[in-house]
Amino acid sequence: MSKPKRYVFFVSDSTGITVSTLGNSLLAQFEDNVEFEFTTITFIQSVEQAEDAVKQINEYAKTAEYRPIIFATLIELPYRHILTKANALLFDIFGRFIEPLELELGLKSSHAIGRTHNKGEETLSYYNRIEAINFALQHDDGASVKRYEEAEIILLGVSRSGKTPTCLYLAMNFAVTAANYPLIAEELGDGLPSILQPHQHKLFGLTIAPENLQRIRQQRYPNSDYASLKTCQIEVQKIEALFRQLKIPYINATHTSIEEISAMILKQTGLKKRFK
Amino acid sequence: MSKPKRYVFFVSDSTGITVSTLGNSLLAQFEDNVEFEFTTITFIQSVEQAEDAVKQINEYAKTAEYRPIIFATLIELPYRHILTKANALLFDIFGRFIEPLELELGLKSSHAIGRTHNKGEETLSYYNRIEAINFALQHDDGASVKRYEEAEIILLGVSRSGKTPTCLYLAMNFAVTAANYPLIAEELGDGLPSILQPHQHKLFGLTIAPENLQRIRQQRYPNSDYASLKTCQIEVQKIEALFRQLKIPYINATHTSIEEISAMILKQTGLKKRFK
Repeated sequence: MSKPKRYVFFVSDSTGITVSTLGNSLLAQFEDNVEFEFTTITFIQSVEQAEDAVKQINEYAKTAEYRPIIFATLIELPYRHILTKANALLFDIFGRFIEPLELELGLKSSHAIGRTHNKGEETLSYYNRIEAINFALQHDDGASVKRYEEAEIILLGVSRSGKTPTCLYLAMNFAVTAANYPLIAEELGDGLPSILQPHQHKLFGLTIAPENLQRIRQQRYPNSDYASLKTCQIEVQKIEALFRQLKIPYINATHTSIEEISAMILKQTGLKKRFK
Repeated sequence: MSKPKRYVFFVSDSTGITVSTLGNSLLAQFEDNVEFEFTTITFIQSVEQAEDAVKQINEYAKTAEYRPIIFATLIELPYRHILTKANALLFDIFGRFIEPLELELGLKSSHAIGRTHNKGEETLSYYNRIEAINFALQHDDGASVKRYEEAEIILLGVSRSGKTPTCLYLAMNFAVTAANYPLIAEELGDGLPSILQPHQHKLFGLTIAPENLQRIRQQRYPNSDYASLKTCQIEVQKIEALFRQLKIPYINATHTSIEEISAMILKQTGLKKRFK
């Protein structure tokens, strides 16, 4: 039996990040039984643009079996009002929360569009993030070990275990200064490389199921020794032994998204994001 | 007069991305008049962890002038129920939306924690993102031009105008295959470098106010020619002329976050994210 199909629209006066994050998270609870098709409409900042969004949604409504669903984060009341004219179920997210917040805080909201990303500390945040990204790039995969004393965390793992994307995500989203060091096959089993020894308190390990590691390596270097299951098994076994022996905290990244790995690292290390 | 201070807790059974994104976005509407202090409590997946969260929040409540505010995205009812015991104002975000969604869809929600990031297409998404990140790294700053035919977009801009973080963000969050090419001072004014000519339809420009460019360059190479206001002015002027002359779409990144630049690029180019 095919799943019923529902058209979903995320409508925002800014980037659409807030609304699509929340909407995806809510609808994921139903996706075993419904097929969702998502459209994100961003930067609605005029009456015309709001009316165009309604037109676009109503076009879908005409042919769809069920009415579309809209999740909207629009600050301006007039635009929110225009959206109510769509032939759709509307979740007006700001509408739902702003009023109780106004009551609790005893204040009116500022009706400032795109506020989250346009703040006083903007410049500082921007510099922090860019600096952290540059640091991650310069200290990726052991490329440089020069400024390890500045690193807040140094990720260890076998090649292709997800160190690079995790470092970049930590830098981009939390301005965390993260380096990573690959423990190559030849080094494994000899204890901690001397370059890392002064930084042992900052080390954090990533590991991965050998079968998944094999699949990832196979994509890049098919049928190589490096991508053989045997090699992957030995490397993973050796690095996990090292983590345990030196009491380096580590997590298994096998079925874990970059977001989850990063959030787990922050939780376990107590590192805090360096901007809002 | 100092602003009243409110303690805010983001409580999640997973990464906390959804709840902190929404909470920050809502509270940004009030931050001119209130000082918020944020704490994120992630991976609440047992009764004990939920009770610990309540304890932590109640500790703050004891000494705070106003009651704390909680934003929570917890799927499991028992954990949500435990949170209601906190001495705080609770915004139960899933509670607010899941029931109307159940009614509309005629279905019960699946109560699956961390669902957004643990899907069937997980592996595909992971590969797409990792491949896009690798592509961005290999084709950063003109380092390689080998696989430009595979690029979905090639960013152009003067040095330090934000090309690298934008490419990485597009890759990380949307699995968009993005390269970037720096137009160095000597090249500017000679038209489009020949290497870029076959790819003109994929070019997208970033520009930035010369004063801000100067500040960014100054941080890295203080008092250099490269960082002088004069140099920055000339380079920006030349590159904007090039964008206009060749009708390359471009945006001004001066007061714009990486998130906003990326969302604007997606909107203007019609590129879609390649995973949920």
